[in-house]
Amino acid sequence: MTHTLDQAQYLDQQDELAHFREQFIITDPDLVYLDGNSLGRLPKATQALLDDLIAQQWGAGLISGWPTGWMDAPRRVGGKIAGLIGAQADEVIVADSTSVNLYKLALAALIARPERRKIITDDLNFPSDLYILQGLQGLSRLVDRPIHIEVVPSPDGIHGPLDGLAQAIDDDTALVTLSHTAFKSGYVYDATAVTTLAHQAGALMLWDLSHSAGSVPVQLNASNADLAVGCTYKYLNGGPGAPAFLYVRRELQGQIGNPISGWMGQQQAFDFDLTYEPVADNGRYLTGTPAILSLSAIEPGVDILLEAGIDALRAKSVQQTEYLIALYDEFLAPLGFALNSPRDVAQRGSHVSIGHEEGWRIDQALINEMNVLPDFRQPDNLRLGIAALYTRYVDLWT
Amino acid sequence: MTHTLDQAQYLDQQDELAHFREQFIITDPDLVYLDGNSLGRLPKATQALLDDLIAQQWGAGLISGWPTGWMDAPRRVGGKIAGLIGAQADEVIVADSTSVNLYKLALAALIARPERRKIITDDLNFPSDLYILQGLQGLSRLVDRPIHIEVVPSPDGIHGPLDGLAQAIDDDTALVTLSHTAFKSGYVYDATAVTTLAHQAGALMLWDLSHSAGSVPVQLNASNADLAVGCTYKYLNGGPGAPAFLYVRRELQGQIGNPISGWMGQQQAFDFDLTYEPVADNGRYLTGTPAILSLSAIEPGVDILLEAGIDALRAKSVQQTEYLIALYDEFLAPLGFALNSPRDVAQRGSHVSIGHEEGWRIDQALINEMNVLPDFRQPDNLRLGIAALYTRYVDLWT
Repeated sequence: MTHTLDQAQYLDQQDELAHFREQFIITDPDLVYLDGNSLGRLPKATQALLDDLIAQQWGAGLISGWPTGWMDAPRRVGGKIAGLIGAQADEVIVADSTSVNLYKLALAALIARPERRKIITDDLNFPSDLYILQGLQGLSRLVDRPIHIEVVPSPDGIHGPLDGLAQAIDDDTALVTLSHTAFKSGYVYDATAVTTLAHQAGALMLWDLSHSAGSVPVQLNASNADLAVGCTYKYLNGGPGAPAFLYVRRELQGQIGNPISGWMGQQQAFDFDLTYEPVADNGRYLTGTPAILSLSAIEPGVDILLEAGIDALRAKSVQQTEYLIALYDEFLAPLGFALNSPRDVAQRGSHVSIGHEEGWRIDQALINEMNVLPDFRQPDNLRLGIAALYTRYVDLWT
Repeated sequence: MTHTLDQAQYLDQQDELAHFREQFIITDPDLVYLDGNSLGRLPKATQALLDDLIAQQWGAGLISGWPTGWMDAPRRVGGKIAGLIGAQADEVIVADSTSVNLYKLALAALIARPERRKIITDDLNFPSDLYILQGLQGLSRLVDRPIHIEVVPSPDGIHGPLDGLAQAIDDDTALVTLSHTAFKSGYVYDATAVTTLAHQAGALMLWDLSHSAGSVPVQLNASNADLAVGCTYKYLNGGPGAPAFLYVRRELQGQIGNPISGWMGQQQAFDFDLTYEPVADNGRYLTGTPAILSLSAIEPGVDILLEAGIDALRAKSVQQTEYLIALYDEFLAPLGFALNSPRDVAQRGSHVSIGHEEGWRIDQALINEMNVLPDFRQPDNLRLGIAALYTRYVDLWT
């Protein structure tokens, strides 16, 4: 069948989530924004909240903001994000960046498994996550036995190396850490299967949910995941560089410490005791003073996702990535493009990567001449991200 | 002599910095705000900048903000802060929280001095800094020889333990770290003298400048300091939880690594190489994606301080703390209050602590009945902070 603009407009009319687009600031309605997986759009409610936070809470209220909402914000916003990733409210907090949180939890895993020295990951993981793990190797100058990071290669650069992981995970493995949805291909791991592999070897399992949270249903509790981190500025629409979230399974909160133990995790922080005594709850994973403007900006975007419902969002995202791949098959495959994302919808997140050897020039032409904003990822990937809250079928057809 | 309101009003008229108060949002002109050393006021220029950042840069510009200013913000704002603390522009960046930055640099010092295991500090230091150092002791489960943190006691809770430090620093000391201005008493260290002690033993010197930056002249280069951290939400007026700054002396930037090595410090970050290769400059001390809203809010406040000049600000601050102590001598000492700050102006920062066994109740009465906002620090300290940009003599007299 031939796909037409009329058909795309019809699909938009049938879309029960279409009205959520009105909750976002959209200054150029013709812009085809396919980069919501890099930086989500600004919710109207966030703009209003920030106006009040800056003028009233900081400008007029000054330090009174701390007891009346700011101190509690990391737990409050974390508790809401928990509802998007299959966790309990007291298992998720917001703090620092994804990188710092990954460092905290990966080092905590090494300290919790002191007889083990290996961390297993794969080459679909964010390079930024690999850099953090490589930084941990710097501790080898102090420790009695070197820390070893093993990066298992994907068989095709698209799918996760399940066999390779099964072979690599052994009884010297303290931690297995992977991106739940791969940043380049959009491949989604079966969390339960990999977690079972890790647990069978006595290792801990840590997921980076940056490309999953708010787009792919994640069942942290049901899959028995131990640890997770993720960013809030992609599908959660938290704004540029908004602080990240961090999950520790409730039963582990007594065993997994915070190696960067700061005052926000201290019992009776305003007593200024000289000895660190962590709070009983997951506030112990907090470190320094949270960036209140950037942290507060997360909450309205999460509220919109909770209102829409992650299952409804996933259903639309699946339909839209299927539609995009059908468009690819009809229009792009004959022109020499390659599909660099899984065809199996169960293994695919909310973005589709399309390869072409002239990818960079095509990306620049789309941006400069066609008012289309995709993302380019080396060496040849055009990454088309779908944010089901505001991406239209018409955008995809265009 | 008796101090009068007329005299305070006269001093305000003579104050050449008085007009800077007009650059801040002040909704209640009668409020006596003596907590600018906890959370600085909102500059009018910051409110305007944030309005544009949110609506135009994020809302309309979306990801185009990254190449056009956001990526560069940690270096640009850090370079300006350098001008307030006696450093070169390429020695200071803004990143993370003070606690995370202290962790990075303290661990980097241990890795740079792998044959040493001791960190020396004192009990005038922020408890939050002590918590971070205690967290480093958790590495003792992995390392071949335990890490030892020695907290040298102040002789009187007000002045720094210079003799005690000289005795404690030895050839097993990797790092000496102190608050340059003590958070409770306001005591200010002679940075050159302590740094010389550290260097004579082959140790590195790290200053926490949180209560100094923007109020007390700091000469990082001239004092030969190796490392420094500090917050931006006190005298720099950066807003609640604004990201912190970090200084590494230029000659050390090749030797001092970043143990939390993230993508913001990576060469050609958008090539997504799998191996961490730090940039040549001090960007290597960056980790994850910076919180752009909170980071951007720092710059206008720093610009105002640079315009006023740190020497002029210090001169006014000295005159105001002297005035406050004269008021204390006349009105409060006879009532059983104690002065918990140094009388020697060379040893005193920009706040004055006054003790009373009923300190907490007095603090509450000041806030609730007299429209005065001081800070209370256990067990009995009323901390009166002077921000020379906007504190009036009339405020102090009141």
